[in-house]
Amino acid sequence: MTNDNQSNTSTKQPARKTYLQGSRPDLRVPMREVPLSDGGAVVLYDTSGPYTDPSFEADPRRGLPPLRAAWIEERGDTEEYPGRTVRPEDDGRRPGRGAETTSFPARRPRRAAGGAVTQRAYARRGIVTPEMEYVALREGVEPEFVRAELAAGRAVLPANVNHPEIEPMIIGRNFLVKVNANIGTSAVASSVEDEVAKMTWATRWGADTVMDLSTGKDIHTTREWILRNSPVPIGTVPLYQALEKAGGDPAALTWELFRDTVVEQAEQGVDYMTVHAAVLLAHVPLTARRTTGIVSRGGSIMAAWCLAHHEENFLYTHFRELCEIFAAYDVTWSLGDGLRPGSIADANDEAQFAELRTQGELTAIAAEYDTQVMNEGPGHVPMNKIKENVDLQREWCADAPFYTLGPLTTDIAPGYDHITSAIGAAMIGWYGTAMLCYVTPKEHLGLPDRDDVKAGVIAYKIAAHAADVAKGHPGAQAWDDALSRARFDFRWEDQFDLSLDPDTARAFHDATLPAPAAKSAHFCSMCGPHFCSMKITRDVRRFADERGLDPEAALAEGMKEKAAEFRSAGGRLHLPVAEA
Amino acid sequence: MTNDNQSNTSTKQPARKTYLQGSRPDLRVPMREVPLSDGGAVVLYDTSGPYTDPSFEADPRRGLPPLRAAWIEERGDTEEYPGRTVRPEDDGRRPGRGAETTSFPARRPRRAAGGAVTQRAYARRGIVTPEMEYVALREGVEPEFVRAELAAGRAVLPANVNHPEIEPMIIGRNFLVKVNANIGTSAVASSVEDEVAKMTWATRWGADTVMDLSTGKDIHTTREWILRNSPVPIGTVPLYQALEKAGGDPAALTWELFRDTVVEQAEQGVDYMTVHAAVLLAHVPLTARRTTGIVSRGGSIMAAWCLAHHEENFLYTHFRELCEIFAAYDVTWSLGDGLRPGSIADANDEAQFAELRTQGELTAIAAEYDTQVMNEGPGHVPMNKIKENVDLQREWCADAPFYTLGPLTTDIAPGYDHITSAIGAAMIGWYGTAMLCYVTPKEHLGLPDRDDVKAGVIAYKIAAHAADVAKGHPGAQAWDDALSRARFDFRWEDQFDLSLDPDTARAFHDATLPAPAAKSAHFCSMCGPHFCSMKITRDVRRFADERGLDPEAALAEGMKEKAAEFRSAGGRLHLPVAEA
Repeated sequence: MTNDNQSNTSTKQPARKTYLQGSRPDLRVPMREVPLSDGGAVVLYDTSGPYTDPSFEADPRRGLPPLRAAWIEERGDTEEYPGRTVRPEDDGRRPGRGAETTSFPARRPRRAAGGAVTQRAYARRGIVTPEMEYVALREGVEPEFVRAELAAGRAVLPANVNHPEIEPMIIGRNFLVKVNANIGTSAVASSVEDEVAKMTWATRWGADTVMDLSTGKDIHTTREWILRNSPVPIGTVPLYQALEKAGGDPAALTWELFRDTVVEQAEQGVDYMTVHAAVLLAHVPLTARRTTGIVSRGGSIMAAWCLAHHEENFLYTHFRELCEIFAAYDVTWSLGDGLRPGSIADANDEAQFAELRTQGELTAIAAEYDTQVMNEGPGHVPMNKIKENVDLQREWCADAPFYTLGPLTTDIAPGYDHITSAIGAAMIGWYGTAMLCYVTPKEHLGLPDRDDVKAGVIAYKIAAHAADVAKGHPGAQAWDDALSRARFDFRWEDQFDLSLDPDTARAFHDATLPAPAAKSAHFCSMCGPHFCSMKITRDVRRFADERGLDPEAALAEGMKEKAAEFRSAGGRLHLPVAEA
Repeated sequence: MTNDNQSNTSTKQPARKTYLQGSRPDLRVPMREVPLSDGGAVVLYDTSGPYTDPSFEADPRRGLPPLRAAWIEERGDTEEYPGRTVRPEDDGRRPGRGAETTSFPARRPRRAAGGAVTQRAYARRGIVTPEMEYVALREGVEPEFVRAELAAGRAVLPANVNHPEIEPMIIGRNFLVKVNANIGTSAVASSVEDEVAKMTWATRWGADTVMDLSTGKDIHTTREWILRNSPVPIGTVPLYQALEKAGGDPAALTWELFRDTVVEQAEQGVDYMTVHAAVLLAHVPLTARRTTGIVSRGGSIMAAWCLAHHEENFLYTHFRELCEIFAAYDVTWSLGDGLRPGSIADANDEAQFAELRTQGELTAIAAEYDTQVMNEGPGHVPMNKIKENVDLQREWCADAPFYTLGPLTTDIAPGYDHITSAIGAAMIGWYGTAMLCYVTPKEHLGLPDRDDVKAGVIAYKIAAHAADVAKGHPGAQAWDDALSRARFDFRWEDQFDLSLDPDTARAFHDATLPAPAAKSAHFCSMCGPHFCSMKITRDVRRFADERGLDPEAALAEGMKEKAAEFRSAGGRLHLPVAEA
């Protein structure tokens, strides 16, 4: 039971970084601890990385410490090798022209010495890796449960052996719903520094992974900066860079060019890659009568390639070779949905589901190589058609984690698609989607800036958490309950600190009631100081508590007495606060 | 089929007010017509009232023209009478102290000369009123369908005989999902002019009704200004004003004071009133163990009254007398949910459902008097518990329209509760809720300003429309499809004009690509000018169209030819636009 008087006088501690200690000294899982003014505390999942630890000195030119380096090395199944030579073309520059490449110390990449070095391979062999223990602590489950879910392919733990900086996380329907934020330079705007800042900004607000969708110049360098500074797994769409190398001409793409790009990115440490291998030649005509045709860049690039060559998608025909590469670095598959609907009119159509069926076929092949697999999903889908997507994905893709973009539940609100899609994202998360790719307010209109990235991440953290609660994920609702109790007790500072966005909650409160006294006031601006609905209930409850009675019995028996007491006090709820 | 070249050169007409002509000259239903650059047009539902008609000269001191005055008079079943004397106390001032009352010409109120003058009474007698024809045109359904839904109590058409200024609208599960916006002065801030401006601002963005929840001084005057200037039905919670008259002391409330307040507001023209008649004495103890107790102001006022007197809620015991008043003015019931959950921990609990069951009992009594009835619903409800609310409300309340606040699907995001609740609102709308009460970003934190009102209305229009689409409401998806076609055709101006918020859509686009040429550009800032996924599909489709073939057959047969053609053009998609 909280004590109100105490809450008004205590000097409240600010939220702080805390660590859960694992079975070995170098296994410490960061969490956000919110001390409450009643002496309790709430410990929350934390994606923000070392940046929010006051003892950490950030230096983007040095990157984050390689948290997992020892774990990877100890396994003894990978080896360093010279690696591919980085060329000016990797940064979208002419051969021979020097590019400003990365200033990081030269790294020798690492790859499997023999068999697959994926978390899935270890899990199948019954091994609980430090990464698995890490996510078990992070999620509050048993390490063995993590291992079993990975072994079954129902979850993925994206962790390239060349990205030791990450704090391991897991994506699967039986874990907390995750959120991905897309960032990336484009031909039209933005710089390397901007993108690194956007990445840390996105993870500060809760992004669990970040996809670098850069196009244009300096792709390789931008990615290196992001990888070395990212505490979360990084995803990419290698086809974008391959297209740059092909001079922007889809018809000029080749398997060799693509393969080289995948190796380049795997050596850098990309944790998961979107590959549009399920867009088949035979699927392309299915899109002709659509309202918005093919809207995925990757999907349309491969469709263009298929049209130009009248050959089967080379990503499909070379899929097993890609599996071998992915197994050697532990790159996780994000099987692209190149034919996802770009309008609700096209939702759940033949083209979309034909591709999903092919994703299922590829998911099974990927399992043969012990590679980790997610399936990407739509897009634009009205609410009544969302569940079918999850049902079919589970059935056709053997319960692999589903990773969806939104879906947007209506097309009429450009400028607000973080909301049109948060609705669909919350629902599809509840139905079983493991990771939600955010949509920002600028979707369809422009490039997201810092505010848009935050708005998108917050909307998606809401969707993901609402899904966790609806799924009955153990412990999820404890956060809601702690905040609601703080609200009910008028512990304003606790309420702010427990908010998904404390800054905004505090600012909105202060906009109406700026006086410091209002922070300890037992009223808010909705009803004003003279009447407060919450106060009435407190009165009801206190009456019962004081008598040490079961509240309901007390009330049923004691109502007459209470009535007299209440009337004698004037029936009025005077509150000991000054009017703001 | 749209013509792209035309779209680049035509001078596009701006959106304009248009009217659907009914069976009599004075029955003209306003709509928003959006001319498209391909020569077509989309006609949308319009809540903004005469203010958006350029031929209308707004004068808040004169109010809107009494659109329905002749219809009401023609029926010959109401009579003017002197009405209750407006007193300083009505404006929260001391008896005898002059208040600045309204500057509107003295009106004699009107009431039933004999039996019920409700739209439900007419509908039951088989009469299609002009109001019913009006909403039929507005919704695109047959007048007889409107009549039948009203007669069955599955819909309400809130239209007090003393509010002739409104443009009739209907609330029912078989019509478009509606949105209510709350406004109101409070003890802490805001002025009369502000509230009138907020009302017109809310309806401009799509609010279908507005509730005036003012407390403190000048309640009567504020309401008069809002009613005389509102094109949408106005709802109130008379208990708030009654409490003011009782000096802010719940125990001092009496049936006579409440009755007088209801008559006062009915004479002014309030179209629907929230009445917390289903909060019974026996329900109060059920809230004692809740996480957040009683959060509804009305609910807690009545709970306090019950505690103080240990008597049954006077709104319940006098319900039939209230029915007689409501029938005499055609005030629609909005049976309050005083025990709605204020946190997801309290969702769907015994207290909430006990009150809902009592709402059902009262809904049946209200029907005996031919009064129109809605039921209010929660609140804070996790996604997995939303549907049960609709199912039980339908079962217990005989399919009366459900009118819900949100629900908020998580408690962790103060500052973003327009989003936490838009998720729940969209879902509950899909499940059958007829009207959604908006929640603004300031919920739980402060009083909404102009921006917050807009943000709340937009989020709820998204939810309502997503629900209409998911329900398969006839014609709803046509809006989405028109916008998606505009997007696909790069008709940027059409896309903006069709947006729920054209201003924001245009501003966001211009933030990245400000050059005027970008408005006719066949690319956007996402992929830049060199590659565009939408262009590829257009290419696929044009190929088929040019040959006058079924697209799928054409593609299947002609792919080899297409491949050759595509390659000979360089396989590159050069677009005839300048780079921005």
